Amino acid sequence: MIRPYFRSGIGVDIKGDGSPVTRADREAEAAIRAVIAQEFPEHGLWGEEHGRSRPDAVYEWVIDPIDGTKAFLCGVPLFGTLIALCEKGRPILGILDQPIQRERWIGVRGHGTLFNGRRTRTKPPVPLKSAILCSTTPDMFTGWKAAKHQRLAAACAFTRWGVDCYAVGMIAGGNIDLMADALLKPWDFLALAPIVEEAGGVVTDWMGAPLTTGSGETFLAAANPEIHAAALALLKE
Amino acid sequence: MIRPYFRSGIGVDIKGDGSPVTRADREAEAAIRAVIAQEFPEHGLWGEEHGRSRPDAVYEWVIDPIDGTKAFLCGVPLFGTLIALCEKGRPILGILDQPIQRERWIGVRGHGTLFNGRRTRTKPPVPLKSAILCSTTPDMFTGWKAAKHQRLAAACAFTRWGVDCYAVGMIAGGNIDLMADALLKPWDFLALAPIVEEAGGVVTDWMGAPLTTGSGETFLAAANPEIHAAALALLKE
Repeated sequence: MIRPYFRSGIGVDIKGDGSPVTRADREAEAAIRAVIAQEFPEHGLWGEEHGRSRPDAVYEWVIDPIDGTKAFLCGVPLFGTLIALCEKGRPILGILDQPIQRERWIGVRGHGTLFNGRRTRTKPPVPLKSAILCSTTPDMFTGWKAAKHQRLAAACAFTRWGVDCYAVGMIAGGNIDLMADALLKPWDFLALAPIVEEAGGVVTDWMGAPLTTGSGETFLAAANPEIHAAALALLKE
Repeated sequence: MIRPYFRSGIGVDIKGDGSPVTRADREAEAAIRAVIAQEFPEHGLWGEEHGRSRPDAVYEWVIDPIDGTKAFLCGVPLFGTLIALCEKGRPILGILDQPIQRERWIGVRGHGTLFNGRRTRTKPPVPLKSAILCSTTPDMFTGWKAAKHQRLAAACAFTRWGVDCYAVGMIAGGNIDLMADALLKPWDFLALAPIVEEAGGVVTDWMGAPLTTGSGETFLAAANPEIHAAALALLKE
């Protein structure tokens, strides 16, 4: 659904929150919802573009058809389709799919994380000063979050900007150590947690709490418990 | 030369200027230099990793084996091999090659720009408030450059961070409108000028001067003369 619109000069609408949306986002989410509704009519559905249904269901699918719509609009193949399955609000399955590069990460609680069908593992611990941090854009670190992010970034080897959800693929694949973002919504982060955790990493908010459908906007993913603890200490300071 | 090292956990050295370098950078540049020296022994060679030879030659090849070494280290396939041919200091041919996605842009003075062998064109003019700007990292806008970049970014629809040289491929392909960077070296920008210009765009420094082997560190690439003039007015203010 998404590939034909990539680099096609597709039109953009601006949503109430100022973020862009396209036909590709809306059509892809509708297609995903239709498949799930057919297979699991009793499950809940919550998507960025088409809202929430059955919010009280034990199992709820949380969907971001294109995470990184701005990357998509730029023609940069780092956006991703995110699908989470939550059980009583906790994510137990996560999918990150990059349709242009045909890369797919799937993490399932108790079953590890697969990258294009093969098991993948995060990096072993390194000192924070050797760690690579990814964040999406400095604009997302408003107010008190700016100083905290700056402290973390200053302690790391370097910060790579602009990677969106793809950074989580890089953590799961053992390429980078940390991702810290803010201003995220549940459909942005719920799918990412099982992918990182089942590859050996840790995902929480900036206070160290596990992520649920009720979580706030801060996101910290780490390759291992050691680097997570070191990063969290700076974010909580 | 570069592909086998991608996502391989390759070791990193830190250079005198604080930037990272790997075996992949050094070996790729050596291979490029060997091919050119064999074919054009009287031409000059200037590379990021192995220095400058015959600086007085009429024709000089300027090489960045991996522009975006940090992206390369993150496992993000947006870095590029840049090769420029300069005539009396002015770039007349530019190559941007993304070896993982197997994407190649070639611009040759008077012959247009090719993307994977097919002619490519930049976007038509849009108002600045609808324009997409790409920049590599906020860290590069030190001192007086920060305020100028901020003014430009505030006037555009949005800024996409972290794209390195790949942003020029996106300008040449008609996907984005502007790229503004700073702290660049001749091997970072000389190859990019013919790619943009021969696709219909304009490339200068932030004062509006054309880029040469003697240019400074600021870089502005635009999809067309109209958006270039609008962006330049804000950068010169």
